[in-house]
Amino acid sequence: MSRTRRFRLTCAAAPLALALLAGCPQTPCPTVPATLPAADFGLVQVAGGLRGNGEGMWPVGRLDVVETVQAEAGRELPLARLWADGGGPAQAVVDLDGCTASFVSPDGLLATNHHCAFDIVSRNSTPERNLVDDGFVAEQRADELDGQGTTIKVLLGFRDVTAEVSAELPEDPLERVRAIEQREAALVAACEEPAGRRCRVARFNDGVPYGPLPEGTPTGVRRFVLFETLELTDVRLVANPPLGVGEYGGEVDNWHWPRHTGDWSFLRAYVGTDGNPAAFAPENVPYRPAHWLPVATDGVGPGDPVLVLGYPWATERYQTAAEVEEAQEWLFPLRLELFGLWIAELEAASARSEEARLLNAPTLKGIHNAHSHATGMIAALRRSGLLETRLEEEARFRDWAAADPARAGRLAGLDGIAAVLAERCALRDHDYLLRYLVRGSQLLGFAHTIVKWAQERPKPDLEREPGYQDRDEEPIRRQMEAAEKSLDVEGDRRVFAAFVRRALTLPEGQRIAPLEEALGADRSDAAVEAFVTRLYAGTTLGDTQARLGLLGKPLEELQGSADELIKLALALAGELDARLERAKRFDLALAELRAPLVAALGEFRGRPQYPDANGTLRLTVGSVRAYVPGDGTAYVPFTTVAGLLQKETGEEPFASPPAVLEAVRRGDFGRWVDPALGTVAVNFLSDVDTTGGNSGSPALNARGELIGLLFDGVWEDLSGDYLYNPATSRSILCDMRYALWYLDRVADGAALLEELGVGGERPPEAPGP
Amino acid sequence: MSRTRRFRLTCAAAPLALALLAGCPQTPCPTVPATLPAADFGLVQVAGGLRGNGEGMWPVGRLDVVETVQAEAGRELPLARLWADGGGPAQAVVDLDGCTASFVSPDGLLATNHHCAFDIVSRNSTPERNLVDDGFVAEQRADELDGQGTTIKVLLGFRDVTAEVSAELPEDPLERVRAIEQREAALVAACEEPAGRRCRVARFNDGVPYGPLPEGTPTGVRRFVLFETLELTDVRLVANPPLGVGEYGGEVDNWHWPRHTGDWSFLRAYVGTDGNPAAFAPENVPYRPAHWLPVATDGVGPGDPVLVLGYPWATERYQTAAEVEEAQEWLFPLRLELFGLWIAELEAASARSEEARLLNAPTLKGIHNAHSHATGMIAALRRSGLLETRLEEEARFRDWAAADPARAGRLAGLDGIAAVLAERCALRDHDYLLRYLVRGSQLLGFAHTIVKWAQERPKPDLEREPGYQDRDEEPIRRQMEAAEKSLDVEGDRRVFAAFVRRALTLPEGQRIAPLEEALGADRSDAAVEAFVTRLYAGTTLGDTQARLGLLGKPLEELQGSADELIKLALALAGELDARLERAKRFDLALAELRAPLVAALGEFRGRPQYPDANGTLRLTVGSVRAYVPGDGTAYVPFTTVAGLLQKETGEEPFASPPAVLEAVRRGDFGRWVDPALGTVAVNFLSDVDTTGGNSGSPALNARGELIGLLFDGVWEDLSGDYLYNPATSRSILCDMRYALWYLDRVADGAALLEELGVGGERPPEAPGP
Repeated sequence: MSRTRRFRLTCAAAPLALALLAGCPQTPCPTVPATLPAADFGLVQVAGGLRGNGEGMWPVGRLDVVETVQAEAGRELPLARLWADGGGPAQAVVDLDGCTASFVSPDGLLATNHHCAFDIVSRNSTPERNLVDDGFVAEQRADELDGQGTTIKVLLGFRDVTAEVSAELPEDPLERVRAIEQREAALVAACEEPAGRRCRVARFNDGVPYGPLPEGTPTGVRRFVLFETLELTDVRLVANPPLGVGEYGGEVDNWHWPRHTGDWSFLRAYVGTDGNPAAFAPENVPYRPAHWLPVATDGVGPGDPVLVLGYPWATERYQTAAEVEEAQEWLFPLRLELFGLWIAELEAASARSEEARLLNAPTLKGIHNAHSHATGMIAALRRSGLLETRLEEEARFRDWAAADPARAGRLAGLDGIAAVLAERCALRDHDYLLRYLVRGSQLLGFAHTIVKWAQERPKPDLEREPGYQDRDEEPIRRQMEAAEKSLDVEGDRRVFAAFVRRALTLPEGQRIAPLEEALGADRSDAAVEAFVTRLYAGTTLGDTQARLGLLGKPLEELQGSADELIKLALALAGELDARLERAKRFDLALAELRAPLVAALGEFRGRPQYPDANGTLRLTVGSVRAYVPGDGTAYVPFTTVAGLLQKETGEEPFASPPAVLEAVRRGDFGRWVDPALGTVAVNFLSDVDTTGGNSGSPALNARGELIGLLFDGVWEDLSGDYLYNPATSRSILCDMRYALWYLDRVADGAALLEELGVGGERPPEAPGP
Repeated sequence: MSRTRRFRLTCAAAPLALALLAGCPQTPCPTVPATLPAADFGLVQVAGGLRGNGEGMWPVGRLDVVETVQAEAGRELPLARLWADGGGPAQAVVDLDGCTASFVSPDGLLATNHHCAFDIVSRNSTPERNLVDDGFVAEQRADELDGQGTTIKVLLGFRDVTAEVSAELPEDPLERVRAIEQREAALVAACEEPAGRRCRVARFNDGVPYGPLPEGTPTGVRRFVLFETLELTDVRLVANPPLGVGEYGGEVDNWHWPRHTGDWSFLRAYVGTDGNPAAFAPENVPYRPAHWLPVATDGVGPGDPVLVLGYPWATERYQTAAEVEEAQEWLFPLRLELFGLWIAELEAASARSEEARLLNAPTLKGIHNAHSHATGMIAALRRSGLLETRLEEEARFRDWAAADPARAGRLAGLDGIAAVLAERCALRDHDYLLRYLVRGSQLLGFAHTIVKWAQERPKPDLEREPGYQDRDEEPIRRQMEAAEKSLDVEGDRRVFAAFVRRALTLPEGQRIAPLEEALGADRSDAAVEAFVTRLYAGTTLGDTQARLGLLGKPLEELQGSADELIKLALALAGELDARLERAKRFDLALAELRAPLVAALGEFRGRPQYPDANGTLRLTVGSVRAYVPGDGTAYVPFTTVAGLLQKETGEEPFASPPAVLEAVRRGDFGRWVDPALGTVAVNFLSDVDTTGGNSGSPALNARGELIGLLFDGVWEDLSGDYLYNPATSRSILCDMRYALWYLDRVADGAALLEELGVGGERPPEAPGP
């Protein structure tokens, strides 16, 4: 079983790689056995030397399982204590608008990534007071800056509601989807009755009950779990490094090791004087979390355990060979193409003025990231041989199922998924482009939301499309408001035009009718430009008050609107609804087939399976660990401030603030020096199992103390969402000591260090190195 | 003394880097001391773990010194035996037209680099029989292919002739240069009397007598040493790999690790049936060398000693701070610019046809290499901090000299060199451009040679300019003939035009008068194009017979020639002669100042100094050794065929021949598998001290057996000609086992393996991996 062979690392395999790296004395190395098994050389070997690996994003409802898995790998860690009896230290870890953050003081101080707080920094920046470039440290709490729409969600509890959601569902797929949505909505509505509660039902595809449930609870079906959170809506900026630290390396280093990025920021959650969640108000008081994470004072070293808690969005660990092939050959190539168009247009728009640059910066940052990701993903998927591996495993899986009549039905998931894919293929390009039209153009997206809102609003709340219920109105309005800080209408227009041009190339049978009608026979670039220019000239949606004013207007009124984008959104509504129905049907079918597939695979593989990431709190446990990116090279697991001097060009993205360079050059490392490195660590590598959404995740040592903030994966692991590979699955973390060093030796962060419990007198100026 | 601190590596420093690479078990690594000295982390540490380093290109006349130096570093190697009593195994190592090659069989078989034999392969290739792309293995000796001008020089002996050359020289610099040249020429002429002898007087700048000389021989003056060689002019191609092996990685990987290049070729030297050197003739017989190198059968591993013998061209290890600054800020930037122009024009010319591509390929390859080199050199010099290091050392050197009246005069070299540089500066751009005009345009170069030949020929042989003596006529004719295979007149014309355009931008006072006169007021690109087109339309030098016909014509006849390039060469002759005189004066002054500087530095540094490389046979002794190219990364010292699969794109330069990929994929490694690597090694790293000219150098193990062929340096060591850095000075070698594997498992090289002493039955087909 090749997969198992790859995963079984042996300590004995390590010494040769070490000898290779260091060179040996001329007499044979005493630590090098005369011969070594061939298969142990190379990637696996250098990754070896530790028992076990970091695979698995374990739900907080199954910490007993991860504790057992770790104990079997030789690591005795009291992991189940992180969440026990309805709460625990894991509650310090919160969802920050799609990132992860964690409480690090009893006064609601939060640590997260610079890139997770970038929108807040950007929104609070002006050409006159450029917090992006200069960084920010609040001198006192009154100086902390309004997050302007930033929210966090603190986990209060969860409950497996599979029985309530799944009982006696209708046969018809769309009715079934609707019934599930309505039951979920009802559960959510009830859960959200207390002030400040935000709830959601998350779906788990491992087919295993979530948390302790009565004996006889069926397995092999997908689970629905209700998560209850407290949403705090006054989140302020406390400190962030300058761009030259927080984004050092920029797009060049993005997704790559060796890395030297100070990707940290501090925020603070506030509540009303009554202790309840409240919108920003000067009189609000810091939130007092039930749990917060102490900062480690003795750092972290190679091989040390790393515990990461966070909110990973999505993984695809149980995709079939057919699905992997579609992703590799169709999905990511198409995404890559669209992101490429998107970047080109926003960069062109950004070149117009400093104001345009600042407005487009947050979006561009995200799209650049996604573009790099798609590029690497295609290469990584092909390189990984995942498709071949899956095909081979599926063949053995089929043999296994056929070998015992008691395994009848174990192949239902596998065969069913293949049938769904075949059906979905017919309109996949149409549906993808349609979705990107309302995504790439924020204005058309607003128009679509306004129209859809008008369509849904007359229905009883719980019968509406998810996302269009009363509870969603406030977030939608906030989003429409917040766009003011990052919407460049000219950039938006250009992206829309590019996507329209692309949509016109769709094959016969997949074309987008309203666009075809609008353009008619003249499909030239000039015609598209004229069409798009007319639309954008004829819309008021670029104005915040105008779009807020349209949200809530009844459908009849919108149908009479002269706003060109509202008219287009109305014309597209039918296709968008049909697309959504198709997507729901396919998603339902795949989801219902996945859980039995995962359960059967668990049985076949003979070990516990973890559910795919779904935006709920997960724990992954690994180590600080090197890797081999390719033949002839090894990546050591720490970078240091010495590397800043090596990479520095003085030009973005390798332009450190002069104060940082000066402190490094004079060897002013203070208490933050790593005794083994002899300098300050910047980033480190770990084999923990993470993905998007884990950004900002706290990394803890075995004592539960904060040692780092996770912020990236590595290029060689871009296919990690599809397959964890112990040789190359690595996350990049910002060493907390780098953030603390900056606050202590470069900026004036004494108060913050004090609050983090690592304050103290500045030692006398250190002599030069 | 910072330099010494960097150079002193300790074994104790190694374990941490090892721990970093492998990750540690959770309990502290037993091999990691609780704390480590800060300075030992990073570059130095990973480079450590071995005593000593590979610094020093030691002349074969001073092997006793290198044996002592190695013994002091803990390595007992019988190095002095390589050349003792007027000969020895080092004689197996020959000069191959500027590369190095070595005899590897009693029948005159030679091993060298693919890129050193590339011209021969290219000259023997046609679109129909493409040996470049397809590779070649001669089935029998009769199939071996004419090297068409390729020669080797076998070292017969050497003698320190300083006393004869230096006695009572005239005061005037130019007269002194001339006197030295004439005395050297006389020595050479006498030496070359026997048939087939080629001799040269090489100059050594360490100020130390070469070989044993009587007591009281003065030191601190430059040494002249007469080298006597046997020139063999029938050198044939025996085997070369396809371009997809021999140049795998191409310009992308050039100068870089990790590397996967099979840069090997086999040639064979032939002599007449009387045993004397002879031009190619079918009846010639293989040359029987006095010494040849056996091939190692047990490969090479990390930390193993590596002895490299070769003919390095030139180093600049004793340049003063002022000279380093000039190189860094003027010389290399200007070279980079000119090579960039050169490449652009030849690539444009190559795009015209497959024939043009084949003609330009050898030149382009060389210029590309030089362009990469200049790029890296500028960066490496700046990064190395060499200038600051030299300034600092010179300050301490001055203090040292001032501290003791007995050291009076020790600063003469340093101060004198500074004065020469100041004078040379005035016309340096003019002189550099002038030289590149006759270099970039092969046709103008021929014209210049023809004119100069006519000027020099009436003089008595020994009074002529070196390079224009009777002995030089045959090589000049051969070169003019050989150009037929690599001269694309249109490419030549384009390069010339580009250099003329550049020359027109020279500052006032440094302009090239004949060009200025020819162009007049209209200095536009169109005017240059018209000028150059007219010249090339009016020359016959593109024709081999025409240029050979002009060589030897008296000056008066040339002065009446209508050939436009002859006319231009005549017009440029005055400036070229003046440039040459200036260069000789400056070079003489610098050379006469360098020897006392090196001698004084040796005294100051307290250790033996080795002379700069000068194209004579040298020995460098190092180890197989890893290095750290930058923070967070380590380069392990072996690559393997597994890396081919990782790099393979199917497109040049990462397009392996299918047969190679198939053999790798089926794990068909045969006897060539490295037991530790579990596969076939491709390239390895060593800290030996090498430079251009070392290409093709044999690397030997401690028993004097061939383990590899040296072919490149690394990017991080491009300033290596100026400074050996134990942390990053690395050479890249092709593991002999890779060449042997190819001959055994991919091509049909059984006869060759047999001749190399490693023949044998092919074992039964190995099962898949």
